[in-house]
Amino acid sequence: MKKSIDEKSAIEYEKKRAIQKRLEDYYCAQSVKNGLSDMRKIKAYLPNEYSFGALKRDIVIAHLEFEKILTFIAEKKEFAVVSGLNPSSPLHLGHACLFEMLADLQKVGAQVYIPITNDETYVDGKVESLQVSRRMAYEKILPDILSFGFSPEKTHIYVMSDYPDIYGFAMYLSKYITLSDVQSLFGAESLQNSGQMFYRSAVQIAQILLPQLREFGGPKPTLIPVGIDQHPYVLLARDIAKKLKMIPPSELVIKFQPSLVDPEAKMSGSKPETAIYLRDDETTMRTKIKKAYTGAVSSLDAYREFGGIPDICPVFQLLNFHLADDGLVADTYTRYAKGEIMMSDLKNMTSDFICGYIGDHKNRTNNSQYPIDSFLLKQKLSSFL
Amino acid sequence: MKKSIDEKSAIEYEKKRAIQKRLEDYYCAQSVKNGLSDMRKIKAYLPNEYSFGALKRDIVIAHLEFEKILTFIAEKKEFAVVSGLNPSSPLHLGHACLFEMLADLQKVGAQVYIPITNDETYVDGKVESLQVSRRMAYEKILPDILSFGFSPEKTHIYVMSDYPDIYGFAMYLSKYITLSDVQSLFGAESLQNSGQMFYRSAVQIAQILLPQLREFGGPKPTLIPVGIDQHPYVLLARDIAKKLKMIPPSELVIKFQPSLVDPEAKMSGSKPETAIYLRDDETTMRTKIKKAYTGAVSSLDAYREFGGIPDICPVFQLLNFHLADDGLVADTYTRYAKGEIMMSDLKNMTSDFICGYIGDHKNRTNNSQYPIDSFLLKQKLSSFL
Repeated sequence: MKKSIDEKSAIEYEKKRAIQKRLEDYYCAQSVKNGLSDMRKIKAYLPNEYSFGALKRDIVIAHLEFEKILTFIAEKKEFAVVSGLNPSSPLHLGHACLFEMLADLQKVGAQVYIPITNDETYVDGKVESLQVSRRMAYEKILPDILSFGFSPEKTHIYVMSDYPDIYGFAMYLSKYITLSDVQSLFGAESLQNSGQMFYRSAVQIAQILLPQLREFGGPKPTLIPVGIDQHPYVLLARDIAKKLKMIPPSELVIKFQPSLVDPEAKMSGSKPETAIYLRDDETTMRTKIKKAYTGAVSSLDAYREFGGIPDICPVFQLLNFHLADDGLVADTYTRYAKGEIMMSDLKNMTSDFICGYIGDHKNRTNNSQYPIDSFLLKQKLSSFL
Repeated sequence: MKKSIDEKSAIEYEKKRAIQKRLEDYYCAQSVKNGLSDMRKIKAYLPNEYSFGALKRDIVIAHLEFEKILTFIAEKKEFAVVSGLNPSSPLHLGHACLFEMLADLQKVGAQVYIPITNDETYVDGKVESLQVSRRMAYEKILPDILSFGFSPEKTHIYVMSDYPDIYGFAMYLSKYITLSDVQSLFGAESLQNSGQMFYRSAVQIAQILLPQLREFGGPKPTLIPVGIDQHPYVLLARDIAKKLKMIPPSELVIKFQPSLVDPEAKMSGSKPETAIYLRDDETTMRTKIKKAYTGAVSSLDAYREFGGIPDICPVFQLLNFHLADDGLVADTYTRYAKGEIMMSDLKNMTSDFICGYIGDHKNRTNNSQYPIDSFLLKQKLSSFL
């Protein structure tokens, strides 16, 4: 090894270590700042149905009163899960992990509510019209969601612009939400127009508290899986719930699945190079994975000497987020950390797995058992009048 | 006359003159400040159908592009009138003048839209629940409105909480409404909670622009009769209309009918001593009028000497706002100004007239021709999707 290569590799390695440190510190600091509970302490109490999934890996990193939900699962009582989706682009792998978790939770008793927030997409200026995000919702997103195996009896999906009753409920809630609270929780930059203000302050809270309306059986424990940036909504919803004698919702904080090209950014539907879509073809997927960032330095000798950092590797995270085989994931992690697995091998193996995973998903989409309409929420809302 | 009485009367008279001056200055300054046009210049062009009404008296004091509406009336083309009503209390005489004008406008071609804004009543904290203002709307307000003689074919009434489609339209509009515009137009004190913000910025605009949606025949001239305090809504609606290629609505500014006990306050449904309700009984009405403030000084001799000021007299204004006989109103004004009509006579004559006026209204209410349901707007809204 030449001296110059050593130094360059050492600098590269230190950069990657620094990324790892920043990511760990970020999630830890956010959890502490927001008074969230550590997920590790509760994993032992998870029911056996969760042989796989985000709940057991380090993907769900923190929670708020998830114990309440576990009790209801153990007692086989009904609870609700609410998880909204912004239809600005087709689904990608960053969504898949969430929907697998929702489908699992449904199997142990959850009523699953999925608002497709095409109004948010619109007021945030991510599409030029409500119509564009509405078509995206029905034509591309709903079929892909349903392929995760939801049952029509326990699934309540609504495209916001087609379910204006939710706005009536939001108006009802809005009286309890002061503008100064909203401004301090969300910050001025995300409250530019009147719709963003109402959406973030009241409409999102209406989505979270909807399952507790009399129309849906009244107050019940409700679980809200979110990214850490959405934590303020849950806080606000918990405040309002107390004022309305509803049960303050529980929360799971899910790590962002990383961008394929930047471990510190998230996989984003609006940036195709960062994401693998559930509708990508095989060639596209293999090319994206081939070009992906990794946790290994570029010099092979230096990688063998230092080892790699799978925690910051978007390719390894594809396995961590989606591969069911715990043993294989753990073994890959160890070999990667020791510098024993070649990046080309890792990328090939991951490409094969992801192509299979997405191929299976496409097959389910093409052979779907129930019509979309059987999942759509149509209940008129009036119990707050 | 004792000297002491003279001085006291002179002071009293000057106070009343000062009130007259303040009221004139107020409306004049508001019209100038807001760039409104003087109503007097346009009265000659009013169609003959308006033999009576607020449009010919000094009750409608200013306008914005009312010419546009007059053209459509002359050409017998369809136009729309929108006038919302806050159901915080039963209707009083302050509303009657407006509804008579709406019914007249309907006879010359207007499609009349009446949003009953029980959501505003609620977010402004004027009632404790949406339910209270909703019941008020259906049980007391709607029957009283319909007695003014509206036809079901050209009348579109909706109670806000029961027509959530309007909120979907408001969300659509809200993207065009920046928060900073809203704050500067309405001021922080009326934007305390999230609902007030959304209501004033977007929902009210949705009500004004609703008749121009494709569901109702697309863009058309629309007339908005308002109190001067509501002028900012019309301004905002005109801005948004231009952005959406709709026709900026025209405006009529209507003077407030004065409180019975204070010429500088308005008749208010939440203060029974200030108002005569359409459901008051005769004894109550006569008692209220007997106790009312007048434009005459209390010393009879001084009144005969100075004359009275009918412009600031809530009792005379009852005649001015509601009595159809132009000659009798003009004659009463002259005699009052000269100090020739006794206040007890004025009050008796006005009581007789108002009891008759309201008695006729009650008869129409009790013998209404059409069921309320035939006036309710049920059209689903989707043309903006």
